[in-house]
Amino acid sequence: MLPDEMRELRSISERLHGAFDDAGYGEVWTPTLEYEEVLERGDQRAAGAGFRMLDDHGRVLVLRFDMTIPIARMVAARFGESPVPIRLCYFAHSYRAVGKGQIQSREYLQAGVELIGQPGTEGEAEVVSLTLEALSRAGLARHRIGVGDGSLYRTLLEASGIPDEERMPLLETLSRRDMVGLEVGLKRLGVSGEILEMLLTLPTLRGGREILDRIDGPVDEAARNLRALHDRLDEKGVADRVIFDLGLVRDLGYYTGAVFEVYDPAVGYAIGGGGRYDSLLGRFGRDLPACGIALDLERVHAASAAEERLEPEGSAR
Amino acid sequence: MLPDEMRELRSISERLHGAFDDAGYGEVWTPTLEYEEVLERGDQRAAGAGFRMLDDHGRVLVLRFDMTIPIARMVAARFGESPVPIRLCYFAHSYRAVGKGQIQSREYLQAGVELIGQPGTEGEAEVVSLTLEALSRAGLARHRIGVGDGSLYRTLLEASGIPDEERMPLLETLSRRDMVGLEVGLKRLGVSGEILEMLLTLPTLRGGREILDRIDGPVDEAARNLRALHDRLDEKGVADRVIFDLGLVRDLGYYTGAVFEVYDPAVGYAIGGGGRYDSLLGRFGRDLPACGIALDLERVHAASAAEERLEPEGSAR
Repeated sequence: MLPDEMRELRSISERLHGAFDDAGYGEVWTPTLEYEEVLERGDQRAAGAGFRMLDDHGRVLVLRFDMTIPIARMVAARFGESPVPIRLCYFAHSYRAVGKGQIQSREYLQAGVELIGQPGTEGEAEVVSLTLEALSRAGLARHRIGVGDGSLYRTLLEASGIPDEERMPLLETLSRRDMVGLEVGLKRLGVSGEILEMLLTLPTLRGGREILDRIDGPVDEAARNLRALHDRLDEKGVADRVIFDLGLVRDLGYYTGAVFEVYDPAVGYAIGGGGRYDSLLGRFGRDLPACGIALDLERVHAASAAEERLEPEGSAR
Repeated sequence: MLPDEMRELRSISERLHGAFDDAGYGEVWTPTLEYEEVLERGDQRAAGAGFRMLDDHGRVLVLRFDMTIPIARMVAARFGESPVPIRLCYFAHSYRAVGKGQIQSREYLQAGVELIGQPGTEGEAEVVSLTLEALSRAGLARHRIGVGDGSLYRTLLEASGIPDEERMPLLETLSRRDMVGLEVGLKRLGVSGEILEMLLTLPTLRGGREILDRIDGPVDEAARNLRALHDRLDEKGVADRVIFDLGLVRDLGYYTGAVFEVYDPAVGYAIGGGGRYDSLLGRFGRDLPACGIALDLERVHAASAAEERLEPEGSAR
């Protein structure tokens, strides 16, 4: 990465850091290499995805694929009986395996926040509004956050009688927004009629507060939570920047409730994401609810550049 | 690393970055993983030291152990015919294998500068004085830079008739400041009398300009270069912060001339180091002289804290 791009990335980092710092989020850092068994405790599917090597004692080390699991372990191990909520932020590289022909980077710079010990709507609203504010400070003007519920479709599949072992492949299909694949998968399992219709329609619902009134039945609890989150975001004056998206499924297995995806219409991909993970810290010995969001800094930078191309400096926004 | 320490590290980083930026050093970044064959081209001994893994095509990837070789390759590949000198800086983690029982970190955060295309004394004086200034801005008051010549002892060994294959083990012994081991090794090779005396005395010479007048003979060229560097540092007003050290041998194989080690008397270990590496860039296809220094940011932080303990705030310095 050459000086011109680094200068802009540093400027974006510093502004995001300023917003996180002002909101009381203390910066932390964890090692690049983690024991695979630690990451697997956080997410069974996630380990093995990255680069693997052996340490002197033959234990498997991998490059971290996100900061959320390492921070969950750090909080359990190092923050003992600290009063909650604990507010932490980070700026660090993470690593992912990339298939041949894919054009993603194997290494990507993340900036993120974790709000630990603040349950429910109050925690989610704080993380969503802080992310919106931080991105505004970093120079974005058109960014939005998509909000869904990570347990919603899982609950729907369960209530529709889909066997346990069939749910994960369907959730993965939905996480790729592959609606044709989802229909094929559901029909293969013998789903038909109104249930099929519901399972295919509901994840296409996307919009403002009004779509939350169109869901009930087995996912009524998720809908109630999302309505409460809308009300809280409305009080904070940012509800108009949030898009409810009932098909939003993040692909990491540790999310338990609300899930987030950060967009900027100037670019065609998510620039960040996160959600609520209330059972992760307990796996490391300190049972606390938590939620967070991570931004991909190079994508934030690309969105910022794309916004400038759309609306050159000096034009009205 | 917890918020209190991160806050101080970030503050030190930002001040160092400010000094580098003001001096025209543009920040760059390179991937954490490098192909082992690339690092070996830079330093045959250095590769294999770090963590190794295979990529999809069976090529060996390692975690970088410094930023100098990756930046040398970057300049050769990406800076094409850019006018020289090229001034670059970085803030990045590097990795080293650590033996059992050693208490060093495997992963350490470096801040450094590389001055590429500026030969001789002029380049070395710029890097040394910039490092001194940057550390002052970062809050240090007692730091010093040790200056030696990486080719001096090698030349002395050659002139003393030590066979080629015996020189590297002796240089490694000296790099650990193991004078007893050095004497044993030289005697084992049959060295005695005045030559032994000279080979054991010269690397103990350490001090100001005056020690440079005590060397001549086969290493007269190295002495002349160091005298010229002293004069240039004197013009810049920083000669009093430099300690000439004829036993200073950095352990990386790519140094060709002046070598540097950064100290603070408040802590008992080097907080940084570097030197001139005039043949490294040529190995990547753009033959340019270069020199640089890297600081270990956690050690700079420790030195800063130790200085404060020695002289509490408010006392005279």
